Amino acid sequence: MDVKKLLDKKEEYIGKEVILSGWIRNHRKQKEFGFIDFSDGTCFKHLQLVYDDKLSDFSEIAKLHIGSAIEVKGTLIKSEGSGQDVEVKVSLIKLLGDCPLDYPIQPKRHTREFLREQAYLRPRSNLFQAAFRVRSIAAQAIHTYFRENGYVYVHTPLITANDGEGAGEMFQVTTLDLNKIKDKPDYSKDFYNKKVGLTVTGQLEAEAFAMAFKKVYTFGPTFRAENSNTKTHASEFWMIEPEIAFCDLNELMDIEEDMLKFIVNYVLENAKDEMEFFDKFVEKGLIEKLKKLVNSKFKRITHEEVITILKNAKEKFEFTPEYGEDIAKEHEKYITEYFNGPVFITDWPKDIKAFYMKQNKDGKTVAAVDLEVPGAGELMGGSQREEDLTVLTNRMKEMHVSEKGLEWYLNLRKYGGCVHSGFGMGFERLLIYLTGIENIRDVIPFPRTPGNCEF
Amino acid sequence: MDVKKLLDKKEEYIGKEVILSGWIRNHRKQKEFGFIDFSDGTCFKHLQLVYDDKLSDFSEIAKLHIGSAIEVKGTLIKSEGSGQDVEVKVSLIKLLGDCPLDYPIQPKRHTREFLREQAYLRPRSNLFQAAFRVRSIAAQAIHTYFRENGYVYVHTPLITANDGEGAGEMFQVTTLDLNKIKDKPDYSKDFYNKKVGLTVTGQLEAEAFAMAFKKVYTFGPTFRAENSNTKTHASEFWMIEPEIAFCDLNELMDIEEDMLKFIVNYVLENAKDEMEFFDKFVEKGLIEKLKKLVNSKFKRITHEEVITILKNAKEKFEFTPEYGEDIAKEHEKYITEYFNGPVFITDWPKDIKAFYMKQNKDGKTVAAVDLEVPGAGELMGGSQREEDLTVLTNRMKEMHVSEKGLEWYLNLRKYGGCVHSGFGMGFERLLIYLTGIENIRDVIPFPRTPGNCEF
Repeated sequence: MDVKKLLDKKEEYIGKEVILSGWIRNHRKQKEFGFIDFSDGTCFKHLQLVYDDKLSDFSEIAKLHIGSAIEVKGTLIKSEGSGQDVEVKVSLIKLLGDCPLDYPIQPKRHTREFLREQAYLRPRSNLFQAAFRVRSIAAQAIHTYFRENGYVYVHTPLITANDGEGAGEMFQVTTLDLNKIKDKPDYSKDFYNKKVGLTVTGQLEAEAFAMAFKKVYTFGPTFRAENSNTKTHASEFWMIEPEIAFCDLNELMDIEEDMLKFIVNYVLENAKDEMEFFDKFVEKGLIEKLKKLVNSKFKRITHEEVITILKNAKEKFEFTPEYGEDIAKEHEKYITEYFNGPVFITDWPKDIKAFYMKQNKDGKTVAAVDLEVPGAGELMGGSQREEDLTVLTNRMKEMHVSEKGLEWYLNLRKYGGCVHSGFGMGFERLLIYLTGIENIRDVIPFPRTPGNCEF
Repeated sequence: MDVKKLLDKKEEYIGKEVILSGWIRNHRKQKEFGFIDFSDGTCFKHLQLVYDDKLSDFSEIAKLHIGSAIEVKGTLIKSEGSGQDVEVKVSLIKLLGDCPLDYPIQPKRHTREFLREQAYLRPRSNLFQAAFRVRSIAAQAIHTYFRENGYVYVHTPLITANDGEGAGEMFQVTTLDLNKIKDKPDYSKDFYNKKVGLTVTGQLEAEAFAMAFKKVYTFGPTFRAENSNTKTHASEFWMIEPEIAFCDLNELMDIEEDMLKFIVNYVLENAKDEMEFFDKFVEKGLIEKLKKLVNSKFKRITHEEVITILKNAKEKFEFTPEYGEDIAKEHEKYITEYFNGPVFITDWPKDIKAFYMKQNKDGKTVAAVDLEVPGAGELMGGSQREEDLTVLTNRMKEMHVSEKGLEWYLNLRKYGGCVHSGFGMGFERLLIYLTGIENIRDVIPFPRTPGNCEF
């Protein structure tokens, strides 16, 4: 039986014999009895096991190590102690797998840096039990949202000859023997007979599918070969990229807002214990912050209006805000505090945005939107896509984006093209916002960053 | 409004005005009226639009090209014609995006080879509308199954320095400039400071998570750099890899059977129109085959017993079945026909299986299991994992599997190890079984095979 099931239906099981398998997370022994914090990983809460010296193997049980796998037989009873409603009075404990005293995950406070080095063991600690269960629950929330709203889930390719936005640096993928390259690589002998790499976005392929299914989304791994050693950069991460036909920028913002509120609600409902843990030990006020987001109406404002607000601010910024230029992290922070909630910033200067974004009539801006949330900055980036073939190809020329390899993408405008929009959300950025955990390395099971590819 | 919603609630909308956006899939004009097969991609069924010469722009509408994007205003009415219950009597059609006559997806029979070359357009054809919607629905079925059964969804890394089973050939991932390699690559200058590649399995990392969460699963992309040009091989595909602690081989088979029946039921229920299409045009008897699977009890039999059956068979095999050896495709076929249903084959000769599989007491076999299904052969491969550290390391020595880089994997046996099991299912193999589509290239949105990395 799972501990989760037992605790969910504890009233039903009180007084009954149960058999459980799991691990010893903590062990406190006294002369005549002992307590084991027991977890089988099916829920965040531990189950207390109590045993006493009436058991013939009391002294053996008292020697059991922290981290060991055990099978326990006992009766679920109401607990006299504080901290739990119920506990299991042990009749039998069988050691399944011992755990020697050099076990790194002892029941004490470890630094996150230390636990990162023990990435294969850290999900057994409270913080990472919570983090990775919330990761799973948030992923389920995303699939549930799009399923319930009639989207088709599309697996866009990871290996690609396109460079996506022309923005991110790419990893190369090859089967050539690097020890045998003379002068230049002969790509005609490579696996795909050409130079290929790991994708930085599934958007272009998602657009093709939106032109057939109207509403689609991707949810898969994405890669950046950027040599950035910051708290928010990883070279392998997961992205959600919805793409919707017959949808303009305003409707896109409706979808972004609706989706985010759904995910936050879902996680608050389905990860109660984990979220309380984060609220208590990681980010004070986290649950209140999230509940506030769910109940707020997101502000919508243009980039130009944002710059005006920033210019009029009394605050001294490190970077001076300028019309026609990007905004800095400090500006994002100011704006979300100014409106005391999430803010959609629309209509960005075209020269700082990607080639495929819909050009506005002013000739200066594009129909792009970034969602800024309090405490985490940019959470989603989206745009209406340029559906006019001539405007799009002219913009590509201006920006020196080659049409080669993108003929099919351009053809989407030729064969029954229409107004369409989409956005991208970094899954780990969402998790950082949801959990209060600051470092992206701590919300990815086995993170990959420059110089780090362990496990 | 979505066509799906309109058709789901047609009784409610009859006589009402509706506004829809979508594409012209076919267009038949007569002198005084015309019919448009209209699809917005939200459901498999097309909606018939009827217009007549009472419309002032009748002659303009009659010229609309197949493939064009349109917005239509009209009234939902009961249809007099055969083939549909309802249709829309048009009051207004607005052209959103034209589609010239060279549009490749004309309403006629195209070969799958031709459509494969038009991968960005083929989801607009009936076959691929059905195939990729079923792909999405099957993915949702998988996530739903594991969510409802308390599994944690874990994203195992794609870029890895391990070679997984030591079996599959790997793609190398690098940021070194291949034009500047002199003699040998200097991996200290590569992104991760060592040689890395694309994973062939997430199993090892999933095992680490099963030791913390009891029940976990992966569902993500996997890679093989095999130069195989067959109907069932792709170099990039998606895999499902559940891993369960405190679970032996028999319990694993229970899970495999339960999961497969759930997925099949879910797809039959949620993709009725698509499955009827496959049954009619792709594999006659498909739905009956799947319903039979759901209602059958899967046979469980050892590899040794299978060989005995094969040796006693009257059938002449190309390859002679032998104890201690692998079985061929023709043998798989014979066995599923012999038992007239799905068959779990257990206890395989250890020398043809991977190092991590639990060794049986006979010293010859391992606690591995392959699920063979009628018409598709091997659908899942799983095993109980060797939890005894000494037995495992001895086996690695025998099989020349290096412990280097796998110390953490071995430590899982040292720190609270336990009986655990897992299996892998290729998502595309499942789709081939579910749809009757024979070629893996036709169930992957943008397939990657040797020499092919388009879009």
